Amino acid sequence: MCAATATTPSSTLAAKMTSLPRVVLCDPVVHKNDCQALFEGIAEVLLLDHTANRDDFIRALQPGGQLEGAVGLFERNQSIGRIGRFDKELISKLPLTIKWIAHMGAGYDKVDVFACKERGIGVSNTPGAVDDATATTTLYLLISALRSFSAAERSLRAGNWKKSHSAVNAHDLTGRTVAILGLGGIGLRFAQLVHAFPMRVLYHNRRKVAGAPEWCEYYDKDHLDDMLAQADVLSIHVPFTEETRNIVDERMIRKLKKGAVIINTARGQVVDEEAMMQALKDGHLSAVGLDVFYNEPNIDPRWYDVPNAVLLPHVGTATADTAKQMELRALANLRDFVLTGKGTDLVPELQ
Amino acid sequence: MCAATATTPSSTLAAKMTSLPRVVLCDPVVHKNDCQALFEGIAEVLLLDHTANRDDFIRALQPGGQLEGAVGLFERNQSIGRIGRFDKELISKLPLTIKWIAHMGAGYDKVDVFACKERGIGVSNTPGAVDDATATTTLYLLISALRSFSAAERSLRAGNWKKSHSAVNAHDLTGRTVAILGLGGIGLRFAQLVHAFPMRVLYHNRRKVAGAPEWCEYYDKDHLDDMLAQADVLSIHVPFTEETRNIVDERMIRKLKKGAVIINTARGQVVDEEAMMQALKDGHLSAVGLDVFYNEPNIDPRWYDVPNAVLLPHVGTATADTAKQMELRALANLRDFVLTGKGTDLVPELQ
Repeated sequence: MCAATATTPSSTLAAKMTSLPRVVLCDPVVHKNDCQALFEGIAEVLLLDHTANRDDFIRALQPGGQLEGAVGLFERNQSIGRIGRFDKELISKLPLTIKWIAHMGAGYDKVDVFACKERGIGVSNTPGAVDDATATTTLYLLISALRSFSAAERSLRAGNWKKSHSAVNAHDLTGRTVAILGLGGIGLRFAQLVHAFPMRVLYHNRRKVAGAPEWCEYYDKDHLDDMLAQADVLSIHVPFTEETRNIVDERMIRKLKKGAVIINTARGQVVDEEAMMQALKDGHLSAVGLDVFYNEPNIDPRWYDVPNAVLLPHVGTATADTAKQMELRALANLRDFVLTGKGTDLVPELQ
Repeated sequence: MCAATATTPSSTLAAKMTSLPRVVLCDPVVHKNDCQALFEGIAEVLLLDHTANRDDFIRALQPGGQLEGAVGLFERNQSIGRIGRFDKELISKLPLTIKWIAHMGAGYDKVDVFACKERGIGVSNTPGAVDDATATTTLYLLISALRSFSAAERSLRAGNWKKSHSAVNAHDLTGRTVAILGLGGIGLRFAQLVHAFPMRVLYHNRRKVAGAPEWCEYYDKDHLDDMLAQADVLSIHVPFTEETRNIVDERMIRKLKKGAVIINTARGQVVDEEAMMQALKDGHLSAVGLDVFYNEPNIDPRWYDVPNAVLLPHVGTATADTAKQMELRALANLRDFVLTGKGTDLVPELQ
């Protein structure tokens, strides 16, 4: 039974399912009926007790433990709960039976995929499912940043109507140029949404994206500065890896033209946050729109007082529709692993 | 000279320009050089002293006054300053020389066009120029309302990160249905922007709009309820007239399906605000996005505490780009009147 707790399994079901491979939900699922239907007759689904810490988790996976023999794990992005990140240390303590981690989320920096690779553990994420919601969030932050809407709403709510709002500092999207850093699924979806205005779309990516629309103008590494010099907006859509840490650094920020806007719905760690804040304070940037922060959820409190910063609490993918799609896709990866030995969305580093 | 104050005209210029028709800027212009170029050799442009009240204004227009003989007026929307609205009383006191009022703005409820008609005064507005900025504002309010972003940012800024945010109450735009009330320039531009997701677009208008894209599905008056029953979102884009006062009433709101969202970037007076607030409080509506209010700028303070209301201080058209386009278009109407006896954008009621 899906979402049965490991500590109180129904004895009937346990007896019925002992011959099935066991998979563990490290975080609870919302769509329990769908989950049950997905694994019916395929795997025994156990839910980690929500009070379990890292040690409890490891212990439960050992012989004699409630989760003994588990072959795959499901866990949710942003749910850095009692068991913590799936870092090198945690991976090293997983029993050898575990061969798959089905991550729910597009970004999977919560899981050390190289440690998994060494142990022969496959990792899947849920690409695609988050593209629409995250691109919509990016568009929202862009409109708010260019139009000074966040500040306008705060002015109204402080009883000042639009006292501090000036049309001089508010700009249309239409006809302006956006540079996209990382034209994956989210970046491409965002490109489509702003193309409707239209905005001119430039992009940089490790390589030119085959099948990208012709109105997406590619700039390779050697021409990155050309792209930045033309951009009214830089929108960041790269995954966070050691390679992309602080990829948007002081130098890159200063290559943008004066008055440019930065939007980040990727990860806080891909931007030099201090350099970005300084550029906003000294007027090199006119606004920023951020859904992610370097040290979230404990964000730098100076962000509250920086003018024209639009701030969201990492809700880029947070919709009922997307959550359902992500959950079902992550669970489907886990099921496919049980059935075929491999989930569909094996992450690129392990391919 | 453009923007010379009426109280201190340069005697040289006054002498030079005495033979030219006089027009009056009742509000200052931002793009003074463009204004000067537009009227060079065509009209003498006088600026009403910013300290003038309604009586001063009327007096200045009389024989012997600083603005004597003026044939046309320029005034800005939302600038209900010392001379007040161009209501029946003010219109009745204008000298018979005045034959045109060039209004800067799409909505022109500030001017009593029927009183103007009786006096043989033409009125122009600035359609088109505001379509993009207002439609973008509508899209912003829609994203914020569906995704609960306004509440999310307030939660973050209160130091609560996303404590009160739940993905369960956040929804994608993609695949949902928007009903547009009034498919004029702004409504049509908004339709194009949401079509990119895509959203399904329904609309009601006094008559079917010739040339509207086929994916805009028309519902006439007899089928209005059918439209409302299908809509996840009702977006209002009708001008405010006595005919449209409270057009979105209790009955219409309750015909929307439970959990629907209302977006208003038109005028506060076209909605029964009390009925809308009640529907939000009792859960019939899940969110509203408002750029306009019944009694703005003195908005009903209960709006601050209603859950999931996104509130902007009437900044729908407020961008530097749009402000310039509107100003130049209003001035061009005034110039065209001087040159040809008629501004291009004569309002529909006077056609």
